[in-house]
Amino acid sequence: MSQPLTLYIGNKNYSSWSMRIGVLLKEKDIEFREIKVRFDSFSPQSEFKKTILAINPTGTVPVLVDNNLVIWDSLAIAEYLAEKFLERQLWPDGVAQRARARSLCAAMHGGFTALRNACPMNIEAKLPEVGALAWRDNAALRADVARLETLLGESLQRNSGPFLFGEQFSIADAFYAPVVMRLQTYALPVSATLLAYMKHITNLPSVQGWIVDALQEHDFRAFEEPYRLEHTVNP
Amino acid sequence: MSQPLTLYIGNKNYSSWSMRIGVLLKEKDIEFREIKVRFDSFSPQSEFKKTILAINPTGTVPVLVDNNLVIWDSLAIAEYLAEKFLERQLWPDGVAQRARARSLCAAMHGGFTALRNACPMNIEAKLPEVGALAWRDNAALRADVARLETLLGESLQRNSGPFLFGEQFSIADAFYAPVVMRLQTYALPVSATLLAYMKHITNLPSVQGWIVDALQEHDFRAFEEPYRLEHTVNP
Ligand SMILES: N[C@@H](CCC(=O)N[C@@H](CS)C(=O)NCC(=O)O)C(=O)O
Ligand SMILES: N[C@@H](CCC(=O)N[C@@H](CS)C(=O)NCC(=O)O)C(=O)O
Repeated sequence: MSQPLTLYIGNKNYSSWSMRIGVLLKEKDIEFREIKVRFDSFSPQSEFKKTILAINPTGTVPVLVDNNLVIWDSLAIAEYLAEKFLERQLWPDGVAQRARARSLCAAMHGGFTALRNACPMNIEAKLPEVGALAWRDNAALRADVARLETLLGESLQRNSGPFLFGEQFSIADAFYAPVVMRLQTYALPVSATLLAYMKHITNLPSVQGWIVDALQEHDFRAFEEPYRLEHTVNP
Repeated sequence: MSQPLTLYIGNKNYSSWSMRIGVLLKEKDIEFREIKVRFDSFSPQSEFKKTILAINPTGTVPVLVDNNLVIWDSLAIAEYLAEKFLERQLWPDGVAQRARARSLCAAMHGGFTALRNACPMNIEAKLPEVGALAWRDNAALRADVARLETLLGESLQRNSGPFLFGEQFSIADAFYAPVVMRLQTYALPVSATLLAYMKHITNLPSVQGWIVDALQEHDFRAFEEPYRLEHTVNP
């Protein structure tokens, strides 16, 4: 008998790569079982690493298990889901639009390093001062946000929003959802266009659900928060 | 009228990401026009960056241009080609096999950092001493090669070779072709299984063609070769 899909994720508050797939599955109404593997650390002796390496040779989350098939890497998982649930239209229609969507995903998958390093995802935190300092001192971060404005702005304009590829949520939006979280946590200055997109994404039920779970974790991981020594609860 | 595909690449000797697509197109007999943008450096003022940023906002090669469509990132390009030339079977047959192939590609796309850093692609060079030192001192490199053995070995065994997914060359082989070059240049110790796969890949006409072009470049780029100060021609 066929089992439901199983998705292994990390802490919802921190794991930006997990969030992509968690949100994608919910938004596209695909049934799955979720297993959270808490981040203790990423050292080879950590419980996290031992658990994940037993499933996935690259030792990272997310991992999707579909019966005997083990798929890792958020992009490979997204492509698999797009094929398996063709009728849910995970990619936009048309070869050209899909190519654009894949290029956008790739830009996030392999790039925006300054943004990712300076502003790690941390949904429960409000860190505008950390963001302001980084914004002032980190030219690469400013360049990343400028490129984000160009790339997303162009896509929103071409396809008339509200999603990156028009009326329908696609994998591209799933890939940029964690970025929306980062921009909010660090209160980085963005255009009205980007702000409207951020609002739209944040209000999706799938994203709201992820945020609620993240806020309930209360699981401060110092190694995920280089900018503060201890956890203080936000108002 | 429809133009042929245009592929922008970097130096054939060094550009591992370009090689994937160059080899894939040739191996699948897809017509294209190749434009090489020489690496002077990757600084924002470099001719390379200025040229590529005018085409592709992420500023990297490879870039594929198909009429009005600009696609960047080797994986997004590969997916586009797979859709556009469906009958050439760029991915293996079957959803599960494609998922496995995509996971393998993802492992290379985002991982094997120690191998990539310690052993940058340099086709014309023979650097067994550099490789031996790295092998001795760099545990992360040894771990990467061990994981490479596991991942490729498992795939070759499951699908009975000679390619990663059986009788037919696929995108997965294109993604691992630059790794084959690295293993050879640095003469890293590998299993008989991996060695046989390396031979098979190296002997493909597409790979031979790429190597011949790389050898003719004679375009030593110091910043690509942290391990030596000047270029000495190999015997
Ligand atoms: N390219 C991978 C990256 C996944 C990734 O790095 N995940 C993090 C958690 S958000 C992880 O598992 N890190 C463990 C480690 O780096 O050892 C993907 O898209 O899934
Ligand atoms: N993820 C990209 C990476 C491409 C990449 O990094 N290419 C190198 C040349 S091999 C490059 O253009 N580097 C320029 C830079 O890093 O500024 C892909 O798969 O195409």
